[in-house]
Amino acid sequence: MAYIDLGLDETVNPGIRGLLRYRPATGRPLMELAEALLRGPSTLSRGERELVAAYVSDRNDCTYCHHSHGAFAAAQLEEGRPLVDQVCADPSTAPIPEKLRALLKIAAATQVSGHDVTPSLIEDARAAGATDAEIHDVVLIAAAFSMFNRYVDALGTLAPTDRTPYEAAAPRVVESGYLA
Amino acid sequence: MAYIDLGLDETVNPGIRGLLRYRPATGRPLMELAEALLRGPSTLSRGERELVAAYVSDRNDCTYCHHSHGAFAAAQLEEGRPLVDQVCADPSTAPIPEKLRALLKIAAATQVSGHDVTPSLIEDARAAGATDAEIHDVVLIAAAFSMFNRYVDALGTLAPTDRTPYEAAAPRVVESGYLA
Repeated sequence: MAYIDLGLDETVNPGIRGLLRYRPATGRPLMELAEALLRGPSTLSRGERELVAAYVSDRNDCTYCHHSHGAFAAAQLEEGRPLVDQVCADPSTAPIPEKLRALLKIAAATQVSGHDVTPSLIEDARAAGATDAEIHDVVLIAAAFSMFNRYVDALGTLAPTDRTPYEAAAPRVVESGYLA
Repeated sequence: MAYIDLGLDETVNPGIRGLLRYRPATGRPLMELAEALLRGPSTLSRGERELVAAYVSDRNDCTYCHHSHGAFAAAQLEEGRPLVDQVCADPSTAPIPEKLRALLKIAAATQVSGHDVTPSLIEDARAAGATDAEIHDVVLIAAAFSMFNRYVDALGTLAPTDRTPYEAAAPRVVESGYLA
């Protein structure tokens, strides 16, 4: 049960879903941000971007966001769930392209503090083939999930620990996105 | 100089301003979020909400956001700049109502981690007169500045250390808001 009265059934609207309905004036731009960042035009695939979101959420120990975006990543990556689990366990050994590995290092640094992102991390990503737009988007995904994770957990919202409900929600998000 | 090429003069568009112009698809919802949270209908004054933003940005050591929102808070609080400095230095002794003090404790916890916000912090805020909507908004302001601060600093954007340019920008933001 959330710490504040959301006026709805959290078993139907767990995690951020109840918060978005509780305060539509902020819920709308939050979902527009997620749609642009995770699904809008980009040279990073939707699966790769959801993977960054799931990875950052795991580092913030946010059950709801980690399971949600882990399910959305798994549904949109050819390698599926095993790759999501490998990346979250240890991105340095996961079977991913060097560009994505370098971008995940930037995401991990951003999760700790903006000041932890060094010119050397940026240079490494560029050397591995990352564009400025990709570096920008990965930083903003990591920063945005530093917000979403805190929002969901600081208000004590419901987060099922079983992966099943998140996997059940994935096809709808994959097909219709965050604004539906 | 930002770590990526923003294609503009950062001395004219420092901090987040260059980033918003670089990527309008994400810039628009980010500013809509700021407008709703910091200036939309609320029982917390605009000055109080900007104060929470300045306080969280100070705790994240984000020069650009701390100076910006510190100037916006000072311009909209009757007690002005001295109160902003007192709150950032030590909210436990600053001359503020107990409700605002309790809400700042929730903001400080959120800045560290969503998991640091305890039912006891929520109860204390409620006992001091905070409503559920106020608790919600302060959590989301603290979470949102955990994003904005990381976004600005992880990309190495320009942040003047002198307060003058931020104070010069304050009247425009106070009058026209974040969507102008």
